[in-house]
Amino acid sequence: MNYPNGKKHSATNKEHHLVKKQSFSNRGMTLEEDINVTNQVLHQQNKCVVHKKPTPVQIVKVDYPKRSAAVIKEAYFKQASTTDYNGVYRGRYIDFEAKETKNKTAFPLTNFHAHQIEHMREVVAHGGISFVIIRFQPHNRTFFLPAMKLFAYWERQYKGGRKSIPYQDIVEHGIEMPTGYPVIVNYLSVIDQLFFRMEE
Amino acid sequence: MNYPNGKKHSATNKEHHLVKKQSFSNRGMTLEEDINVTNQVLHQQNKCVVHKKPTPVQIVKVDYPKRSAAVIKEAYFKQASTTDYNGVYRGRYIDFEAKETKNKTAFPLTNFHAHQIEHMREVVAHGGISFVIIRFQPHNRTFFLPAMKLFAYWERQYKGGRKSIPYQDIVEHGIEMPTGYPVIVNYLSVIDQLFFRMEE
Repeated sequence: MNYPNGKKHSATNKEHHLVKKQSFSNRGMTLEEDINVTNQVLHQQNKCVVHKKPTPVQIVKVDYPKRSAAVIKEAYFKQASTTDYNGVYRGRYIDFEAKETKNKTAFPLTNFHAHQIEHMREVVAHGGISFVIIRFQPHNRTFFLPAMKLFAYWERQYKGGRKSIPYQDIVEHGIEMPTGYPVIVNYLSVIDQLFFRMEE
Repeated sequence: MNYPNGKKHSATNKEHHLVKKQSFSNRGMTLEEDINVTNQVLHQQNKCVVHKKPTPVQIVKVDYPKRSAAVIKEAYFKQASTTDYNGVYRGRYIDFEAKETKNKTAFPLTNFHAHQIEHMREVVAHGGISFVIIRFQPHNRTFFLPAMKLFAYWERQYKGGRKSIPYQDIVEHGIEMPTGYPVIVNYLSVIDQLFFRMEE
């Protein structure tokens, strides 16, 4: 079976030694690739409509050659003012950012920009569902951390606190992401659990 | 008073001859500029969180000069697979596209791509609020058209129907956008009227 992006899923030898739950997050794919495939699958399954926003680019110079497409000849990467992913699920606005770290013991808060945190605060204030997906590569574990929990760590760093979230705190306060196939990083099941359980 | 983008609002002589209602959509600003300013003002007023998505670009070649920012040397514009604007308002997901036409009698459906219409359908199916903002430049009038109304015209063109929406139909089935200052294109008041009135 192929993923919608055409990549085949292939288990490596290493994977056979891992517990089943983890086997799909160890295919040499980045977290971003995993989420993009997940979004495509969820889209095909008609579960939600979530897209990654295009990379923001400041375009400076464009050539318009005759009889062919416009070519951007000079442009620069701009810092994103929001998070990377947003969309709609069960009528609710959802908005999230995904980051992975090679760090074993903590997740550095430098992975986020102040305006991204501000954006997430606003989303929560307006009734949206906001969260981050954090992968610890060395542990091969991926967590769902509600934005509200992130805010506490973010503020603490400006009050003389540490500039990272300890791995153990994320294990404790986050929710480990169910991983599987074909939905690799099943954030919807966590949203169901956290935000819709009461209503069912 | 200045807009958040630093542009001063200046009335032209021509404006003084127009009715007050229309005076702010005749400043030589494009619909896109009007909506961007509107979104900034609504954001500052803490009414909603709506952003324009970055222009999708396929990056082919990037230079990394020493001691300076990465420069994109070759890139191409990609067709957008979704609409341009989305965000959260009163807990609901909102999603829209804005187009203006120089046509006096009808709005050409070629302004939309099939996948944008498909995206809007999905948004509606998942409980989001989807609409288009259409400006007729010659009439200096801007309308809010709920996506559901657009779909009917979109389908009709594949059944031998016309490939445009008559101006009079938009006047009748759309809602003329309240325009003013500093909120130029007040789509939130139309959303309140159409989607939240029952709850108040």
